[in-house]
Amino acid sequence: MILVNGHVSDCVDVLDRGLAYGDGVFRTLRTAAGAPCWWRDHYAKLAGDCAALALECPDEGVLRDEVCRVAEAGVALAKIIVTRGTGARGYAPPHGQTATRVVMGLPLPAHAQPEGVDGITARGCTLRLARQPRLAGIKHLNRLENVLARAEWDDPDIVEGILCDVDGMLVGGVMSNLLWIAQGILHTPDVSASGVAGVARARLLRAAPRLGLGTRVGRYPPAAILAAEEVMICNSVLGVRHIARLDDVCCPSAGWSTRLNTALHEETD
Amino acid sequence: MILVNGHVSDCVDVLDRGLAYGDGVFRTLRTAAGAPCWWRDHYAKLAGDCAALALECPDEGVLRDEVCRVAEAGVALAKIIVTRGTGARGYAPPHGQTATRVVMGLPLPAHAQPEGVDGITARGCTLRLARQPRLAGIKHLNRLENVLARAEWDDPDIVEGILCDVDGMLVGGVMSNLLWIAQGILHTPDVSASGVAGVARARLLRAAPRLGLGTRVGRYPPAAILAAEEVMICNSVLGVRHIARLDDVCCPSAGWSTRLNTALHEETD
Repeated sequence: MILVNGHVSDCVDVLDRGLAYGDGVFRTLRTAAGAPCWWRDHYAKLAGDCAALALECPDEGVLRDEVCRVAEAGVALAKIIVTRGTGARGYAPPHGQTATRVVMGLPLPAHAQPEGVDGITARGCTLRLARQPRLAGIKHLNRLENVLARAEWDDPDIVEGILCDVDGMLVGGVMSNLLWIAQGILHTPDVSASGVAGVARARLLRAAPRLGLGTRVGRYPPAAILAAEEVMICNSVLGVRHIARLDDVCCPSAGWSTRLNTALHEETD
Repeated sequence: MILVNGHVSDCVDVLDRGLAYGDGVFRTLRTAAGAPCWWRDHYAKLAGDCAALALECPDEGVLRDEVCRVAEAGVALAKIIVTRGTGARGYAPPHGQTATRVVMGLPLPAHAQPEGVDGITARGCTLRLARQPRLAGIKHLNRLENVLARAEWDDPDIVEGILCDVDGMLVGGVMSNLLWIAQGILHTPDVSASGVAGVARARLLRAAPRLGLGTRVGRYPPAAILAAEEVMICNSVLGVRHIARLDDVCCPSAGWSTRLNTALHEETD
């Protein structure tokens, strides 16, 4: 089921600024028992992303009800898109514009099935992410860099690509955040100039102290992960996954992905 | 009139990758007597932009016929959007996907009316454009930087904002290319890492020798335009416009915008 502004529909206005300019934001989240998982975090992130673009964020209650409506059909995922609504031609954001909201149910992708192996294969991407502090961190609809990076491989055994910025510093995965454990510290790249600050990443940074881990967010070269006890990716759909192989390098496992996955789900909201 | 894949429609599939990721390109062009102006250049640019994103470009004849259909209604502008079509969730570009094409008629914006004054007022934007060689030059649908830059002002007397990249070097206008004449040379900023390589800019670079002008494309600091005989913006809708005022600075006119406008229209196709 797909709801567009609360009505069952399979189309959006061709003048929508989401199509014209990618002028909007989105979320993909798990559902369980007809309700969104981690809703508090997801709505807070959506509201923050809308605020960063001066977009009107849909009312929390309205949006949650719509996610529940699509989740009742038994789907595993819900995707929310919020755009600046329809507009005339021209970049100037119209005043008093009502946002467009799309809520759709989606099946779990193959690589996120529970029976999937924990250790995934990843590759280093050639594309370098631009640095744009005004857009970094936000899960906005301008995702051509991700599309081009994901187009670099066709091998279905490769689940994720790892991206660096134009300076060659680690940013994250094409569809996930990157993290690793070294010397008792959970490390994850800074995303203040490139990349997305995902909800799963935020939850893990919050959970780390409960596991006796320190946290460090910084700018790291690719070599930084070679010395890690365990390298992982995370997002709201996959949870935490250990990277078992990165290009030609076998990466060690120290059981952290299991512990972090448990911690990730300890807070239910 | 709006045509979506050749059919009169006002909506696109909510699963279109143009909405999901800004995964597509667009053109805005003038029409006259029921036909597109500068069609050869516009189609060549569209095809080049599609190729850069590995998008299937619509057939030239089909697309031109559709532009003529919307132009017959007497509209001044046509906008073409080409996206990678509908897709399942996920960044991976689907194989053998049919592109979505949208062709719509639009009225001439107020700032492009013929009775508009030649000398426009512009401002320097605060936003700095990211540098991304993989996307620069392409008129793609990831235009949040332009939206944020255009949101910096509300004064209807200001027609355009001038943008620099993260290194503080000139790139162009929010909706136009930037050019200036100094010492018998038409200068325009390099757009190989940020900005759009517009059709009007390409036509002017081609026309310059006919006016006895050399051409130079390079990386220039904002100070470079202060010494110019005349500073101008150009695009397919506005043609060439002299910048009469840039923030608090009055900019000289030397009649170049009139001469360049004439040259711009000498090639009819």
